[in-house]
Amino acid sequence: FGKREGEYSRLVSKSSNKLLNSLWEKKRIPEDGWPEPTLELFLSWLACHDTNNRVDMVSIGAGEREGRVVAPIVRRLHCNMTHGVGRSGSLLEVQPKALGSSMLACLANEFALNAMQLLGLTTCKACLVVPMCTGMSLSLCMTSFRKTRPRAKYVIWTRIDQKSSLKSIFHAGFEPIIVEPVRERDALVTNVEHINRLIEQRGSEILCVLSTTSCFAPRAPDNVEAIAAICRLHDVPHLINNAYGLQSEEIVRKIVAANETGRIDAFVQSLDKNFQIPVGGAIVGTFKQSAILPIAQAYPGRASGIPSRDLVLTLLHQGRRKFVESFDRQRMLFVKMRRKLVSFAEDIGECVYDVEENEISLAMTLSTIPLEKQTLFGSILFSRGISGARVLTSSHDVKNVEGCELINFGSHCSEQHGGYLNVACAVGMTEYEVDEFFVRLASVYAKFTRDMGQWMSEKSIFQPDGYGEEDD
Amino acid sequence: FGKREGEYSRLVSKSSNKLLNSLWEKKRIPEDGWPEPTLELFLSWLACHDTNNRVDMVSIGAGEREGRVVAPIVRRLHCNMTHGVGRSGSLLEVQPKALGSSMLACLANEFALNAMQLLGLTTCKACLVVPMCTGMSLSLCMTSFRKTRPRAKYVIWTRIDQKSSLKSIFHAGFEPIIVEPVRERDALVTNVEHINRLIEQRGSEILCVLSTTSCFAPRAPDNVEAIAAICRLHDVPHLINNAYGLQSEEIVRKIVAANETGRIDAFVQSLDKNFQIPVGGAIVGTFKQSAILPIAQAYPGRASGIPSRDLVLTLLHQGRRKFVESFDRQRMLFVKMRRKLVSFAEDIGECVYDVEENEISLAMTLSTIPLEKQTLFGSILFSRGISGARVLTSSHDVKNVEGCELINFGSHCSEQHGGYLNVACAVGMTEYEVDEFFVRLASVYAKFTRDMGQWMSEKSIFQPDGYGEEDD
Amino acid sequence: FGKREGEYSRLVSKSSNKLLNSLWEKKRIPEDGWPEPTLELFLSWLACHDTNNRVDMVSIGAGEREGRVVAPIVRRLHCNMTHGVGRSGSLLEVQPKALGSSMLACLANEFALNAMQLLGLTTCKACLVVPMCTGMSLSLCMTSFRKTRPRAKYVIWTRIDQKSSLKSIFHAGFEPIIVEPVRERDALVTNVEHINRLIEQRGSEILCVLSTTSCFAPRAPDNVEAIAAICRLHDVPHLINNAYGLQSEEIVRKIVAANETGRIDAFVQSLDKNFQIPVGGAIVGTFKQSAILPIAQAYPGRASGIPSRDLVLTLLHQGRRKFVESFDRQRMLFVKMRRKLVSFAEDIGECVYDVEENEISLAMTLSTIPLEKQTLFGSILFSRGISGARVLTSSHDVKNVEGCELINFGSHCSEQHGGYLNVACAVGMTEYEVDEFFVRLASVYAKFTRDMGQWMSEKSIFQPDGYGEEDD
Amino acid sequence: FGKREGEYSRLVSKSSNKLLNSLWEKKRIPEDGWPEPTLELFLSWLACHDTNNRVDMVSIGAGEREGRVVAPIVRRLHCNMTHGVGRSGSLLEVQPKALGSSMLACLANEFALNAMQLLGLTTCKACLVVPMCTGMSLSLCMTSFRKTRPRAKYVIWTRIDQKSSLKSIFHAGFEPIIVEPVRERDALVTNVEHINRLIEQRGSEILCVLSTTSCFAPRAPDNVEAIAAICRLHDVPHLINNAYGLQSEEIVRKIVAANETGRIDAFVQSLDKNFQIPVGGAIVGTFKQSAILPIAQAYPGRASGIPSRDLVLTLLHQGRRKFVESFDRQRMLFVKMRRKLVSFAEDIGECVYDVEENEISLAMTLSTIPLEKQTLFGSILFSRGISGARVLTSSHDVKNVEGCELINFGSHCSEQHGGYLNVACAVGMTEYEVDEFFVRLASVYAKFTRDMGQWMSEKSIFQPDGYGEEDD
Repeated sequence: FGKREGEYSRLVSKSSNKLLNSLWEKKRIPEDGWPEPTLELFLSWLACHDTNNRVDMVSIGAGEREGRVVAPIVRRLHCNMTHGVGRSGSLLEVQPKALGSSMLACLANEFALNAMQLLGLTTCKACLVVPMCTGMSLSLCMTSFRKTRPRAKYVIWTRIDQKSSLKSIFHAGFEPIIVEPVRERDALVTNVEHINRLIEQRGSEILCVLSTTSCFAPRAPDNVEAIAAICRLHDVPHLINNAYGLQSEEIVRKIVAANETGRIDAFVQSLDKNFQIPVGGAIVGTFKQSAILPIAQAYPGRASGIPSRDLVLTLLHQGRRKFVESFDRQRMLFVKMRRKLVSFAEDIGECVYDVEENEISLAMTLSTIPLEKQTLFGSILFSRGISGARVLTSSHDVKNVEGCELINFGSHCSEQHGGYLNVACAVGMTEYEVDEFFVRLASVYAKFTRDMGQWMSEKSIFQPDGYGEEDD
Repeated sequence: FGKREGEYSRLVSKSSNKLLNSLWEKKRIPEDGWPEPTLELFLSWLACHDTNNRVDMVSIGAGEREGRVVAPIVRRLHCNMTHGVGRSGSLLEVQPKALGSSMLACLANEFALNAMQLLGLTTCKACLVVPMCTGMSLSLCMTSFRKTRPRAKYVIWTRIDQKSSLKSIFHAGFEPIIVEPVRERDALVTNVEHINRLIEQRGSEILCVLSTTSCFAPRAPDNVEAIAAICRLHDVPHLINNAYGLQSEEIVRKIVAANETGRIDAFVQSLDKNFQIPVGGAIVGTFKQSAILPIAQAYPGRASGIPSRDLVLTLLHQGRRKFVESFDRQRMLFVKMRRKLVSFAEDIGECVYDVEENEISLAMTLSTIPLEKQTLFGSILFSRGISGARVLTSSHDVKNVEGCELINFGSHCSEQHGGYLNVACAVGMTEYEVDEFFVRLASVYAKFTRDMGQWMSEKSIFQPDGYGEEDD
Repeated sequence: FGKREGEYSRLVSKSSNKLLNSLWEKKRIPEDGWPEPTLELFLSWLACHDTNNRVDMVSIGAGEREGRVVAPIVRRLHCNMTHGVGRSGSLLEVQPKALGSSMLACLANEFALNAMQLLGLTTCKACLVVPMCTGMSLSLCMTSFRKTRPRAKYVIWTRIDQKSSLKSIFHAGFEPIIVEPVRERDALVTNVEHINRLIEQRGSEILCVLSTTSCFAPRAPDNVEAIAAICRLHDVPHLINNAYGLQSEEIVRKIVAANETGRIDAFVQSLDKNFQIPVGGAIVGTFKQSAILPIAQAYPGRASGIPSRDLVLTLLHQGRRKFVESFDRQRMLFVKMRRKLVSFAEDIGECVYDVEENEISLAMTLSTIPLEKQTLFGSILFSRGISGARVLTSSHDVKNVEGCELINFGSHCSEQHGGYLNVACAVGMTEYEVDEFFVRLASVYAKFTRDMGQWMSEKSIFQPDGYGEEDD
Repeated sequence: FGKREGEYSRLVSKSSNKLLNSLWEKKRIPEDGWPEPTLELFLSWLACHDTNNRVDMVSIGAGEREGRVVAPIVRRLHCNMTHGVGRSGSLLEVQPKALGSSMLACLANEFALNAMQLLGLTTCKACLVVPMCTGMSLSLCMTSFRKTRPRAKYVIWTRIDQKSSLKSIFHAGFEPIIVEPVRERDALVTNVEHINRLIEQRGSEILCVLSTTSCFAPRAPDNVEAIAAICRLHDVPHLINNAYGLQSEEIVRKIVAANETGRIDAFVQSLDKNFQIPVGGAIVGTFKQSAILPIAQAYPGRASGIPSRDLVLTLLHQGRRKFVESFDRQRMLFVKMRRKLVSFAEDIGECVYDVEENEISLAMTLSTIPLEKQTLFGSILFSRGISGARVLTSSHDVKNVEGCELINFGSHCSEQHGGYLNVACAVGMTEYEVDEFFVRLASVYAKFTRDMGQWMSEKSIFQPDGYGEEDD
């Protein structure tokens, strides 16, 4: 090995250090994605910051929690970072023993904010990656509101038939007041009047309004602009369940507008539904930087660092360019899916509900299938490899969720209908999937309507229970 | 390839299938640990059960949540299982799209129960692995108690100076009533009388008593037997924060005894502190099988499957034999550590608090170091590679945690003392670590007491903030 | 978990087994590539076939070679298959201890044959994946020819300026008789007459003719049809160094034609250059099934299984479709590269040698750069991130390779020329690379011709030694 | 993140750089092994040195070999280093495109030398890791001797019944002259007289003497001291096949002594048999630094970097301490195995051949089992999970290996015997394996001798072919 090779080696180390330090200083998603070898270098570099990976000294653990991992395979799957994120005081605190894990948590929050802004939420000021589901994160926000609303007992909740949303209210120690949506042509929209009335009546007994943007058609995103205006007027907190709403330009526009003229205290979105990472986390966003701290402090302990790591790795892998592209593609494919569904519906004598503001989910009537066989039709779609498509039937039955009685659960409204099929085009869906979906749908429909009698006896269909809810 | 090789190949497939199916049928930790290739086979086999890994058909995702993962490195770190565990209804529900993930969750709960019984909690009837920290899991339990105690507002809390424990009460929407421990010779023990009085006074306003077993000396494990007896008498729920208490035979004995003669509704332990897996989860245990369901149902959504996976992999890696051995070794090493610490203390003119019931944590007085330099002494230990050893000094200052005012925070009691050093011997600590700990402690102490003046100016010491609390 | 889930689980196991067994029975590249989880399942399944990964019994190693691996990271990087392939008798033998590794080796040979046929070598009858470089594999073939040519001392070698080709002859214990190419317009083509004369003169002293197809322009692929005809006529073996010739339809066509009318005993190609896998292996192909056995038997021992594994994984990953596509793309991009290079050459007053039969490598004259600065120009291209582009200058110097004296080494011919730049478009090159190559080439050329004086002093350019040969 | 965390981060980077640079400067096996996170950091750091992993610039490949890898799983299994080692000129050359891979190759050679010296070969001056089996590496050495022995036709070969050894001679283009061992009490030892006579007769027609040290009892290691003396006297090269001889202190002592008073040109050992890494490589050692270069230059091309990588990772994982310990343990366990085998033999009326110099392999007579059933006995041991134990029976049959006729193949000698069982205790064997071996041996023997008639009909025994040779 000659002098030139030595110089080149120093150049290599310098380039690597520069790349890593620059990422850490800027804390912004790079324009282009990083290849895997660089991601691995990044993880190795971070891991060295945790005391139990020190290369210069053997660390002696004399406490009750030392990040020890006995199974090598588990250690590896955690990239040697085992301390989780946060401390008992706050999810944002730095762990002296685990700077690497803490840096990852910090990068995740900054990347989340960066991503929000890239998607149009330009006035968003702070984000917190929470290693819990959307529901738990909503609960965390409500808990943090408690101190400023000592007399609060209730949360005004615009009905969405998803158990976790409702349970999040109970979990935080409050009771929901349910506001049913109202029908506006095909769509189910927010009963703004009702919300206004409730706030006027109950005042300080109301902890907050919990509105929901992303939902299954024919429910439309809540009118968050009107709600935000009411909340500002009456000085009541407003929390938005924006589970997978980042995918919709319309929803993003609404939230930005609502914040400008009204009040939004925090909005929560799922990490897996929007960022194509495994289930396990959510992002809480706020429009004031100071608003994120009480939420981070409400979490009682140390938490898993996995969702933070997954988010950072995913955004480093994609880079700004591909991240934005993946959302653009969803928009394009949703339009294609709607067009194809409308066309298919026409062919078979059905129709697609016209819910313009819902840019993710679609609903097609099922009037050509007898009511009692609609559920079976859905099961067959599932058994043919189509997951996520759901058949909703209507009934007067009452479903009890944590003590709340909801009529016609699944339809977001007690109003009866003739049954419909829900499908969604979410970020990450490929053109192949859209096309193949219609191939299978058409073939299943044709076979089903032809042989309707026989299918009934087919016992081999794998019928998952309760698959009609959101969050199947 | 001849006929014999063909036969052997079939034999291989049969053996593998037999092993995997037998595990799934018995759902018990195997006697001997599995080697890594078998663990990988197990993970591959499970992953095939998730719809998006089907080998016989391409799955089409037409829903809003399809387990899509865009970064290959992330997918890999999740062993291709991306759907998390549970459904919006309950952490125990099976996901039709993700049977593999659900099987993992189910195995985790069964393995946890199996492990409890191996550790002496033979009357434990059900366990739930919760992918949240101990604090959040306590909170989840309290939430699930709410329905049966509609008038409850307060939780009786035996003081332990760890923020997450206190915050867990607020998170569930309740207020703590603090019961300070009382001094009994060297130890700080439960004020049983006070708890009894409070329950008699407040009755149905009390949601539950939250007691704590594992703690830093000189605090002793709470007298859960007495508390359980009171709770049974007055029909008040009893929740135990058993964070790292599985490591102590004495604590396990107490809990079993308390349940026999009194009432325990649930007891919660940390996954990482007891099972040597990365931070992120906890186990809730109950003594009635039916008691676990309401807790599982209180979680509002789908959750990370990582803690379940890590627990299963770790216990398969260890097998029953090594799992039990690791706890036996902790007991042996704790005795060694106590003996060496007592001996070291004698040498330097200090003493070790005599808190017999605390079999994990030790406290040695620091009377030979001036009060104002004790914290610095702790920082130096940290900078010499000893993590987890903490110096506690005494003060009349008031610390405000979520609105509660705690005097002399860190010492579990407002009573003043002359400063002490806490060290713990937790499961996974090695004999090398114990020995090396004393080598470094002795050398740092010698240098520190000799050069006391000069050290003060040493600015390079990395002094982590607030490192005096549990859960550093 | 209900009955339906149990049924689904059995279905999953059945599907997996079916897929794996079907692959093993057919031993053909699947039409569509397999996703990574399936590749991992495949590797796990194979590994179980090696005795030291048995799940039903602990294997006891009482021999001198037991496939033990002490470093877990190494074991993992070998997917737990540590026994290599072949036995001392032959590379094709099955190892009783390591059926999994042997199955992998067998699949690799079958896949290689399958791939050859897909690329147009439809009359190829057998392939052997050899875990050694192309040169060593040529050597192995020559060794296996020895028995049938007991009086042979020489190998007729059509000059190609690549050391390994020449050294392979010496390694097998023979001496080369060098046949220089002749100029035919721009191209350097085979001196068929000379070969014929040599064979007539030396007869049984000739072991074989070693011809070369893939090469750097302006050398053209050897006229293997004519050589094969001569070899058949005189009953002399014919071995083809087809290093990266699978990428050229013209070369493939020639080889097939040559075999039809003449004699080809074996043809050897690089695994990494044609199949996009890491360096380490080659494929020997024959047109008679029985011809492969003596070659496999000539290898003295057990060999690395890595090249076989890499080939199988790569072809399973691509599937037939993408494998064929990657070669189609090379053809399309080569045409583009030639067009752009011709156009660039015109712009700067140079020209591209017209060597129609060479569909991989191109040569552009460098008359506008002074002879003494041409090498520097090449180094600058390298330092600007372009690897593989080489500047060839002409000289009367003699290079001694293993005792052979070659004038003007690098140019495949002693004939002098004015210097040229070689570039290649090999399989795997992307459109982005082609485009970016011209951007950088143009910018380096412009700067270089403008500042020619100053560049001379630039010492920081990393000038790799001897980078003018093939196989840099 | 505060200033102190920033300082700590810089400290971390500095420590890592220091560790890596220090390794690269010293090129010595570290005293203590490195943990996995550090090994991963090391691999990431090396990979950055290959041009196609540059983080500062996208590399454009315009050559015919660009290290492209299309399957991500393959890229990963190669730690992103895909260029192999060496260049067409020599295995020792540095690749400009692949400094990382070249550094790994360089470290492997230095570590190998370091390891040799630790094992007692203190006068060894150079080592070359060759990515081919022991046989091929012997062949490479012979090829490199050719230039200095232009008239050589023969290699004097002391018979060892292992095909690869014999084939290596033919592969290099020479013919063996076989020297049968002579019986000296129980042992088969070198016929030194015969070798001397042959050299005197044939002189310059002899390329070299190929002696063998490690072998199956009752063959003893060759008398390399006497051979080396003869070779020095007559100026004939001496090549030693030291396949797994590094494990024997006696063999190491002999080689060192032989070199001091006689001539050894090179000695070759298996990587997998001595270093517990997967099959695929060998180490050539020489006692003159300059002697390694011609061997490295004889390899015709670029080679797999995997054996180099595996060796480096393994020695970094073990560190000097554990590396040396593993050899000490083999010595201790061999003694135990011999003691137990002698005792078992006595119990059943057999005896163990007394071959004192053979410290790895043992042979026990099988006089209590009828000749025609001895092979079956061996197969049953294999089917009971004991691999590597071999039954040798005697016969007058002639085995033809590459044209050589060997009588009584497997027994290293045409002399007839009554059948025996070979077992070995190689490095890496555990105490558990030794103990369990005797448990199974005793039980199989007992059952076999009791039921001898019935076993004959048992068709289900998996009888591997030709398993009686070394290198099964």
